[in-house]
Amino acid sequence: MTETNSNVQPLNDRSAEELAAFLTEQRAAYEALKGKDLTLDLTRGKPAPAQLDLSDALLDLPTGAKDEAGVDTRNYGGLEGIREIREMFAELLWVEPEQVVAGGNSSLVMMREVLVDLWLKGAVDGVRPWSAEEKVTFICPVPGYDRHFTLLDWFGIDTVTVAMNEDGPDMDAVETLVADDPSIKGIWIVPTYANPSGSIVTQEVAARLTAMPTAAPDFKIFWDNAYAFHHLTEEEAKSADILTLAAASGNPHRPIMFASTSKITYAGAGVAFLAGSVETVKWYVSHLGKGAIGPDKLNQLRHAQFFGSPQGVRDHMVKHREIIAPKFAEVERVLDQRLGGLDVATWTRPTGGYFVSLDVLDGTASRVVQLAKEAGIALTPAGASFPGGKDPRDRNIRLAPTFPELPAVSEAMDAVATCVLLAAAESLASR
Amino acid sequence: MTETNSNVQPLNDRSAEELAAFLTEQRAAYEALKGKDLTLDLTRGKPAPAQLDLSDALLDLPTGAKDEAGVDTRNYGGLEGIREIREMFAELLWVEPEQVVAGGNSSLVMMREVLVDLWLKGAVDGVRPWSAEEKVTFICPVPGYDRHFTLLDWFGIDTVTVAMNEDGPDMDAVETLVADDPSIKGIWIVPTYANPSGSIVTQEVAARLTAMPTAAPDFKIFWDNAYAFHHLTEEEAKSADILTLAAASGNPHRPIMFASTSKITYAGAGVAFLAGSVETVKWYVSHLGKGAIGPDKLNQLRHAQFFGSPQGVRDHMVKHREIIAPKFAEVERVLDQRLGGLDVATWTRPTGGYFVSLDVLDGTASRVVQLAKEAGIALTPAGASFPGGKDPRDRNIRLAPTFPELPAVSEAMDAVATCVLLAAAESLASR
Repeated sequence: MTETNSNVQPLNDRSAEELAAFLTEQRAAYEALKGKDLTLDLTRGKPAPAQLDLSDALLDLPTGAKDEAGVDTRNYGGLEGIREIREMFAELLWVEPEQVVAGGNSSLVMMREVLVDLWLKGAVDGVRPWSAEEKVTFICPVPGYDRHFTLLDWFGIDTVTVAMNEDGPDMDAVETLVADDPSIKGIWIVPTYANPSGSIVTQEVAARLTAMPTAAPDFKIFWDNAYAFHHLTEEEAKSADILTLAAASGNPHRPIMFASTSKITYAGAGVAFLAGSVETVKWYVSHLGKGAIGPDKLNQLRHAQFFGSPQGVRDHMVKHREIIAPKFAEVERVLDQRLGGLDVATWTRPTGGYFVSLDVLDGTASRVVQLAKEAGIALTPAGASFPGGKDPRDRNIRLAPTFPELPAVSEAMDAVATCVLLAAAESLASR
Repeated sequence: MTETNSNVQPLNDRSAEELAAFLTEQRAAYEALKGKDLTLDLTRGKPAPAQLDLSDALLDLPTGAKDEAGVDTRNYGGLEGIREIREMFAELLWVEPEQVVAGGNSSLVMMREVLVDLWLKGAVDGVRPWSAEEKVTFICPVPGYDRHFTLLDWFGIDTVTVAMNEDGPDMDAVETLVADDPSIKGIWIVPTYANPSGSIVTQEVAARLTAMPTAAPDFKIFWDNAYAFHHLTEEEAKSADILTLAAASGNPHRPIMFASTSKITYAGAGVAFLAGSVETVKWYVSHLGKGAIGPDKLNQLRHAQFFGSPQGVRDHMVKHREIIAPKFAEVERVLDQRLGGLDVATWTRPTGGYFVSLDVLDGTASRVVQLAKEAGIALTPAGASFPGGKDPRDRNIRLAPTFPELPAVSEAMDAVATCVLLAAAESLASR
């Protein structure tokens, strides 16, 4: 959204002299910034140490090693994960336990496995392996998550972008794309507090996604619900109920949902989940069983004991919010104060998730990131939120304020603002 | 090896009347066995609960969450695993830390990943992805490990078998196969205390494997050293030093080594390792990074603290030996006592590993497994040690005595002997 501040004159409205003076000011500010010798990092969506500390009771768990079914979690077996953690997350994700697989420490790895299975064997509702298709294309709402794009690229899967709006992907564009082109096999969506826009896919958009006619019979929605419980305000967004909608639409196998505790407990040592139709789960587990014996059930038991109940997960997330919400507020405060009214940038005001998406003047994002780097502030590379790392307007920058301490967030954002202003002044002055 | 007992007349030397009488005896013995209503399981190579208990100090580890490099193992990152566990297992596997990747809880999963990478991208020394080859074939020494065969089959990789001798695969056969046929891309070997024969690949055989000319430039040795430290006697076999041999032969990228702590600490919650040339490790990690952020480093730290040193691993294995060696001795005692001198079976006397390989009369293995099943004793399906589950001579049965308690091993083996004798008597009497 665009900021307005009646006391400030938009840069674009200023005379050449005013702009030149502004540019000189910003150059001075930037030189001052460089003189501070900062080393700050806003690159990746990593939990802060204080967030990880919230789960340190895990270090003394589990108590005992048997799950509720009496299975010794130290030993082999149990491809689909232990019952109690599947039940817990089934309730949280609004599905049945039979629709959930609890895996290892990474939902990204589960996504890769699903792509491998689709590639080599074909979908549960497919007619042939995707590798046997002439071309496979995914729709990527942008800005989006760079790791999704990297994985698609690794498989040689083409991408086509649509806009990620506040209520989800631009459905008119999506429906048009999938209607006639059978090479379009999937869409990758972070539905709740999207990375990086913070968008929330509404129930209405989800209903269109599940119901739309697709030329590919085995079209898949990769529903990466990484931030389902990661609220920044007391008004907690509810994820669209994609699996129920899909079943109701007669396309029960279309969505495959992913989630994890990576940003609930430990980013490196959590538990990941896959959910889908019962048939999808059977399909996944049957392929998984060809090259795996079972996940780390002991870590699943550790997590089940730590949370105690689905409500335990929700309660735990409130503690995260208390730590990170002030950091997001600080991002907003600095951006409002430094950039408000100048018409040189817009930014999201997420109510959850891990990111703020900052759009600067067209053609200046790379310059901002470069300026920041030279001043000691690491930002995600410009374009990272687009397939191939190429933002056609070179304007989007993903900000990840969770990891640094609050004073560092202030300092880094102040620096970012300086870089945004300098790049904007440079750009406008050279017109 | 064949058992001899001068007091016993081989079945084959007996008259028709004597055989008929023997068959009647065995039928009675089998009926008595069924009357016992046993429920016993010798199917899979699983550690016994008492073995898992040896590692229960893990349940209270790690102390702290930072590794020696100061990295917070609770957070994201570190694709190749934490330094101290890589160093520890590098020393145990006789390689440099740069040659080792520490992963998740399963070496089988790492093998699958390597196959995916070879399939989709090609080898570090390859010219094209294996999926672009007209045909890909693996040499499978038999008897071998069923999960290897299952995985090959899943990829549509053909198999050709060679004998697994006491010193490793039949190298004359292997050398002939690889010399002319470029479709032969690999061989899968459990080099130390092979599954199920207990064979130990000698340094000489390993040298031939690494030095032999292969028509395929990217021929791979999948060196699954699952039992490298799993000695059953005080005389501990040393694994052949495959990576040094390969480097010396000018084929440094040919072997890829796999190992894990699955049968050292917890079968479900251990740490797996991949080792190879530095280039192989880079190749693997670069592909891994397209769909993974990092392994469970916290569990790696837990293991590093638990072992303390490479010697800690070796010392720990002595405790396993004390638990399982008596079970293997019991298998041998029962087989010697019940089958010795009758010329109806041969069996291995492993000095390490998890299995005894029992060869019964040709054509009777399936019958033995069926008889055992009907008497309540679960055995690995006959043929499981061969690709496609098809033992051309229907004679091999894999026995896994580690999981049951010692009295159950005695009872189960006594039952197996009864089934072997009945099946042999049936077979000989019907000639």
